[in-house]
Amino acid sequence: MSRIAYVNGRYVPHHAARVHIEDRGFQFADAVYEVIAVSGGGLVDEAPHLQRLGRSLGELRIARPMSEAALKAVMREVIRRNGVRDGIIYLQISRGAAPRDFAFPRSARPSVVMTARRHSGPNPRLVEEGVGVITIPDIRWARPDIKSVALLPNTLGKQQAKEAGAYEAWQVDRDGKVTEGTSSNAWIITGTGEVVTRQADTSILNGITRLSLIALLDGEGLRLVERPFSVAEAKAAREAFLTSTTNFVLPVVRIDDVPIGNGHPGTAVRRLREAYLSYTAAQGMRR
Amino acid sequence: MSRIAYVNGRYVPHHAARVHIEDRGFQFADAVYEVIAVSGGGLVDEAPHLQRLGRSLGELRIARPMSEAALKAVMREVIRRNGVRDGIIYLQISRGAAPRDFAFPRSARPSVVMTARRHSGPNPRLVEEGVGVITIPDIRWARPDIKSVALLPNTLGKQQAKEAGAYEAWQVDRDGKVTEGTSSNAWIITGTGEVVTRQADTSILNGITRLSLIALLDGEGLRLVERPFSVAEAKAAREAFLTSTTNFVLPVVRIDDVPIGNGHPGTAVRRLREAYLSYTAAQGMRR
Repeated sequence: MSRIAYVNGRYVPHHAARVHIEDRGFQFADAVYEVIAVSGGGLVDEAPHLQRLGRSLGELRIARPMSEAALKAVMREVIRRNGVRDGIIYLQISRGAAPRDFAFPRSARPSVVMTARRHSGPNPRLVEEGVGVITIPDIRWARPDIKSVALLPNTLGKQQAKEAGAYEAWQVDRDGKVTEGTSSNAWIITGTGEVVTRQADTSILNGITRLSLIALLDGEGLRLVERPFSVAEAKAAREAFLTSTTNFVLPVVRIDDVPIGNGHPGTAVRRLREAYLSYTAAQGMRR
Repeated sequence: MSRIAYVNGRYVPHHAARVHIEDRGFQFADAVYEVIAVSGGGLVDEAPHLQRLGRSLGELRIARPMSEAALKAVMREVIRRNGVRDGIIYLQISRGAAPRDFAFPRSARPSVVMTARRHSGPNPRLVEEGVGVITIPDIRWARPDIKSVALLPNTLGKQQAKEAGAYEAWQVDRDGKVTEGTSSNAWIITGTGEVVTRQADTSILNGITRLSLIALLDGEGLRLVERPFSVAEAKAAREAFLTSTTNFVLPVVRIDDVPIGNGHPGTAVRRLREAYLSYTAAQGMRR
């Protein structure tokens, strides 16, 4: 089955899927996106993803390109045409194509691009052994809470992590506090058993996996504290982990080469991962 | 004459000029660009523009897509095919198209896009009367010295200026000092006749028009001081102006509705504009 992409009203072969060179997503990073997991053919947390998409569009004053019902129908068609049962759907909306000018164009129609692919989460070895992260200065713009494609610093950070033999880079603000990973949220579990992750203000992207996991903590008998934590605190934590749409809940066992706990995934993280996977599987069955 | 764009080795009609939806310029703002003025058919300050392009590529570790000689040849062909005698050429190089992943792709070939169009500088009325600017917080990432397409905050700032009835927004750092405009460098002339513009460290893009004008100051008997200046200092300045490839030297006569000097373009700015225009015209004749 060859891959099919949706581009501005048409379903086209992936290799031929293109946008205009004056699309503002290409020239100005003037676009937003979402990545939604597909589990058992169902979209995981579709409602909060679409809600966040609406917020991103609103913050940038990009017009909604179509009704929510139409958007949902296209997503389902993209999933169907690509034969995705477990995987992800990628959705990008830009302000549209217009003669290059920094100010908003008077009459551009937003561009909509969607792709879907099979994906079964991170390598099982990474889940089993946990991953390492490095810490780097957070050099992003002041509004990472908007899920825009202005991701250049994120790509540089991820590449730096990869070259250091790590899986992710945790970005650190001017006060020495971790904001988040380049494409994931950052969490620690303290010696007293508190689950700590940064509060979702304008300094981080409010992950949908983050939100769903927060809702599951109570059922696991774990207490949440939303606050910034320092790199030193993270290194001294009992457990650490990251969350994202494609990684679900992934144990972090090294920060800048300092082992976390005994250097192996802890019991709370394993439990949270299982709880989250059950949660997503249930959505797949419910669809 | 219908417009022609260059895209990855081919000259194509502008309306049909496209890049792949997984071009990293579209998905990650992982691309750099240059805008070069064309005067009398000649490229203005081609060498420093290409030098800066090389620096941007180097900072992001994007491979050079072709030799400098080839790049120059393509630029000339794009100018020729579009019949541009006075105008601009836009050149964008991204890290290339690759399956979406934050880290650098192993084997993507950089994408190259070029367009050219006629352009005769800003509206003469703006030159005659001067323009207004507003001041806004600088919310960009920490590396605006790299000429990347991560321009979302710049577009938001420019739009804000437009809606406030201003021509440009001057961005202000945490210390209350002006960094630069959203697509231009910021300058003032103090009561003692010093020409002040921020030093080109990582906080601003080192404009080529900025550099050329600096080289012309001596001949005009004006003294340059490269240092940050505050919004208050700018509002109390004798004259103010902005520079960019498309605006050349443009008088600023209002900052946040405070008139600069007597509220009309000053004599030094006019002289500098004339000197700069002579300089560019000479390059057109020399080609």
